[in-house]
Amino acid sequence: MPDWNPETYLAFADERARPALDLIGRIPNRAPELVHDVGCGPGNSTGLLAEAFPGAKLTGIDSSHAMIAKAKKAVPKAQFIVGDASEWSPNPDADLVFSNALFQWVPDHPRHLARILEALKPGAILAVQMPDNLKEPSHYEMAKIATKPAYSGKLQGAVRARSPLLSPQGYHQILRPLCARLDIWRTSYHHLLAGQQGIIDMLSSTGLRPFLDPLLPSEREHYLADYRKALTTHYPAMDDGLVLFPFPRLFLLAVK
Amino acid sequence: MPDWNPETYLAFADERARPALDLIGRIPNRAPELVHDVGCGPGNSTGLLAEAFPGAKLTGIDSSHAMIAKAKKAVPKAQFIVGDASEWSPNPDADLVFSNALFQWVPDHPRHLARILEALKPGAILAVQMPDNLKEPSHYEMAKIATKPAYSGKLQGAVRARSPLLSPQGYHQILRPLCARLDIWRTSYHHLLAGQQGIIDMLSSTGLRPFLDPLLPSEREHYLADYRKALTTHYPAMDDGLVLFPFPRLFLLAVK
Repeated sequence: MPDWNPETYLAFADERARPALDLIGRIPNRAPELVHDVGCGPGNSTGLLAEAFPGAKLTGIDSSHAMIAKAKKAVPKAQFIVGDASEWSPNPDADLVFSNALFQWVPDHPRHLARILEALKPGAILAVQMPDNLKEPSHYEMAKIATKPAYSGKLQGAVRARSPLLSPQGYHQILRPLCARLDIWRTSYHHLLAGQQGIIDMLSSTGLRPFLDPLLPSEREHYLADYRKALTTHYPAMDDGLVLFPFPRLFLLAVK
Repeated sequence: MPDWNPETYLAFADERARPALDLIGRIPNRAPELVHDVGCGPGNSTGLLAEAFPGAKLTGIDSSHAMIAKAKKAVPKAQFIVGDASEWSPNPDADLVFSNALFQWVPDHPRHLARILEALKPGAILAVQMPDNLKEPSHYEMAKIATKPAYSGKLQGAVRARSPLLSPQGYHQILRPLCARLDIWRTSYHHLLAGQQGIIDMLSSTGLRPFLDPLLPSEREHYLADYRKALTTHYPAMDDGLVLFPFPRLFLLAVK
């Protein structure tokens, strides 16, 4: 899979900042000293953490060299390292492990969340946000179209690229025995987008990416035509031509 | 219907404060001068507004004399008036009309939200939160049990007491033409409660109230036994005996 494209990813920076800001707003320790941002991408969330916690020592971790290069420029005061969340462990002195929209991509992520929580000191916080949209029409249609013979098996990896999330009960049963407090909530942001193309633009650098990257340009065109048609059924434009696009996200906030 | 019981209502103060705090956190004007809290209840939300906006002149409005009496003691610096939201209009100079968990009880509430928004000055904000749980098992079971002949028509009013919410698209189409910006989101808080009885305790002063108040004590006992049974099916206890109870709420934030 090609490396992430930081430019496209940043085009929807406002929409993507919102869940990170909401999660930061719920962190009970307002002066953490040592903070890890796991899956920091181009440093957007790290920048928000730096603003919220100006006294903190920040480390951003991401598997993409391109993202880390961008993040270093975006937040010069933070440290950044290239690393894989499934092999990474927090500093035992960390006060906060923050992760915005990463763990849905990590195979067997509940086990890794438990492992990270276990490695933290008492009172430290694990704060996680993950898109919870595999059952939304925008996402199940991606997978459904991918099974067409026209793509001759090129998209089997894409269908399996993301792990489905557990239910809130599932996370409770795994994480609650490991911590003093666990708060779980799920928010559907309703993004106002420029029709079905607006949805495609928003998803093209994230959820849609593993479905488009393996295709030849002509196949990609067909795939997107099919996808646009499906979106028109599920997300019809309103009178003003705009589409209100629900984007559910699950939040987990554990205090060790 | 008897007046609201402020004591029972306050027992779940933390759970109820959360959506108000989340809504306050999203208000873009961080120094509103004139603020109305419509449906202020015992003043919890008014107190949170007073903390967030210490320079603001606050007015709380509620239809219950008992709630207003309590609110006056809780937030002495605010003004409080007994009034019905369907007949109330904001001061045209108001910077913020805030309403936490009221409008789901107001018949034809979208019309009143539009009316209030129309009465505001440019730049003023209408910030509204409403429980969006009539389709949740906890609430449709209340209504289903109420149709049993045992309650001999006493609960017909209860079934109709709350208006179903519109879809986010529905609010967009009514409110968006009246304002410069409209932000809509829906959050399911997952409350950790002490089994099915915890759910009953949490709802007994709000959603369950119109179903219990019209019944004789013996009828109430039967109703609650049926209700507890239904809850056990839909919200089984986890290994630790607790129940994770999803409580969806819709948020509307309009900037005129």
